[in-house]
Amino acid sequence: MRETAENLEKMAKFGISEGISELILTTRNDAAAGDKLSSNAAPFGIIWKNNRMFLHLFKGSKTCENLTREDFFAANMTDDAVLFATSTFYDLKEEEFENVVYIDEKSASPVTAVIPFLKKADRVVLFKCVERTEAEDSVIIDIEPADFIVLNLEKEGFIVNRGFYSVVEACVHLTRYELTKDRQYLDLIRHHWSLINRCGRKRDKEGFDIVRKRMNEI
Amino acid sequence: MRETAENLEKMAKFGISEGISELILTTRNDAAAGDKLSSNAAPFGIIWKNNRMFLHLFKGSKTCENLTREDFFAANMTDDAVLFATSTFYDLKEEEFENVVYIDEKSASPVTAVIPFLKKADRVVLFKCVERTEAEDSVIIDIEPADFIVLNLEKEGFIVNRGFYSVVEACVHLTRYELTKDRQYLDLIRHHWSLINRCGRKRDKEGFDIVRKRMNEI
Repeated sequence: MRETAENLEKMAKFGISEGISELILTTRNDAAAGDKLSSNAAPFGIIWKNNRMFLHLFKGSKTCENLTREDFFAANMTDDAVLFATSTFYDLKEEEFENVVYIDEKSASPVTAVIPFLKKADRVVLFKCVERTEAEDSVIIDIEPADFIVLNLEKEGFIVNRGFYSVVEACVHLTRYELTKDRQYLDLIRHHWSLINRCGRKRDKEGFDIVRKRMNEI
Repeated sequence: MRETAENLEKMAKFGISEGISELILTTRNDAAAGDKLSSNAAPFGIIWKNNRMFLHLFKGSKTCENLTREDFFAANMTDDAVLFATSTFYDLKEEEFENVVYIDEKSASPVTAVIPFLKKADRVVLFKCVERTEAEDSVIIDIEPADFIVLNLEKEGFIVNRGFYSVVEACVHLTRYELTKDRQYLDLIRHHWSLINRCGRKRDKEGFDIVRKRMNEI
C-alpha cells in the first residue's frame, strides 16, 4: 500500500502508521466439520515500509498457522493494556470475539469470509493476505486493507501514557525472554514495571499483573 | 478533580488519563512593559492520582518559573515526536504559538488571561493553578481544567507505535542524564534508538535526530 498523504491519514484513524504499528490480530482457528467457530487473538506488528504493508510471523505462532490457511484477518486498535497482555500470553474466551461476514468482490469468483474481531476494540481494519513468502523460521505475508469498522464512536483523542506503553514493552520482552531465556529482557521488564507503577492508569497496572502472573508460571 | 467515569472519559478525549499523562505545557514568559508576548513550551507530566490533579515541577525549569507567576497555562495533546523533542531541549519560535484570551468568571473579580498554546497541537486543555506547595527543590501545583479546545478535527484514532513512545522515553532519559550524568540513561537511550529505527514513523526518526543533536552538544 502506497504511503501517500491520503493513505497515511486514513490508516492513522485506524491505528496504523508507517513503521510498525502494534495491534491485536484476530484470526480464525481451524475447525473440524461441525465444530463451533473458534478464534485467536495475539498482538503483532503491522509493518508498513517502502510502500509495502506486511506481517512477519514466526512459525509456531497460532496467528502464523491460521494465516497460512485463512486469507482474511482483523487488526484491532486498542489502548487497553489488559487486552494487550492477556492476548499476548493467554487465549481469550470466544465470547470476547464477534464475527463479521466479508464478501470479497474483487476476487475472480466472489469469496465470503467470516472474520473474527474483538468486541472491545475501538476500531478494526479487515485485511486480506495477498502473498506469502516462506523462510526457514518465518513467513512474510503481504497484506492489504479490505474494510474498516468503527466500534467505539465515543473514543476520541489519545493519551501519551508511559505506563501503557511500558505494558506493551513488557509483553514484547517477556515473549522474547520465553524464547531466549536471555536475562537482559528481565532487566527491561523491571525497568518498565517501575514506570507502570509511577505513570500507569489502573488498567495499565492490571495489564502488568497479567505479565507478572505469566512470569510466575514460567 | 474527581476520577469519576464521566470525568475520565471527558479528559481522555484531551489526552489526559489518571496516572501521568505526557503533554506539552505552554506558559507565558515574563516580559518587561512594552515587550512583545513571549511563550515557553516544554513536555511535563500531568499527574492525576487519588482524585488530585497536579504538576510537580523542579525549580530551575522555565515552566516552574512561569507558573509561579502566572495562574493559567495550556496542556497540548500531540503525537508529533518532533514537537516533543524540540520543546524538551530547545525554545520553539514564537510563531509556533497562538494566544487565546480566557476570562475566568469564577474568580471573585473576573480575571482575563492570555494563554499561549501550540498551533500544531491536536487538542488543548486550558488549566488554572489553584494552589502551590513549595518544597526545597520543587513546587507542587494543584490544577483544574478551565476550558477545552479542539484544534485538529481531522484527527481520529490513535497509533500504538513503539518508535513514537521511544522518542518520549529518550527525551526523558536525556533530560535526566543532563542533570545526573548517570550513564545508565545513555544505555536506555541506545535501547530506544534501536526501537525507533525499527518501529518508528518518519516523524519519530526526525524526533530522535533532535535528541542526537542535543547529545552531541553536551
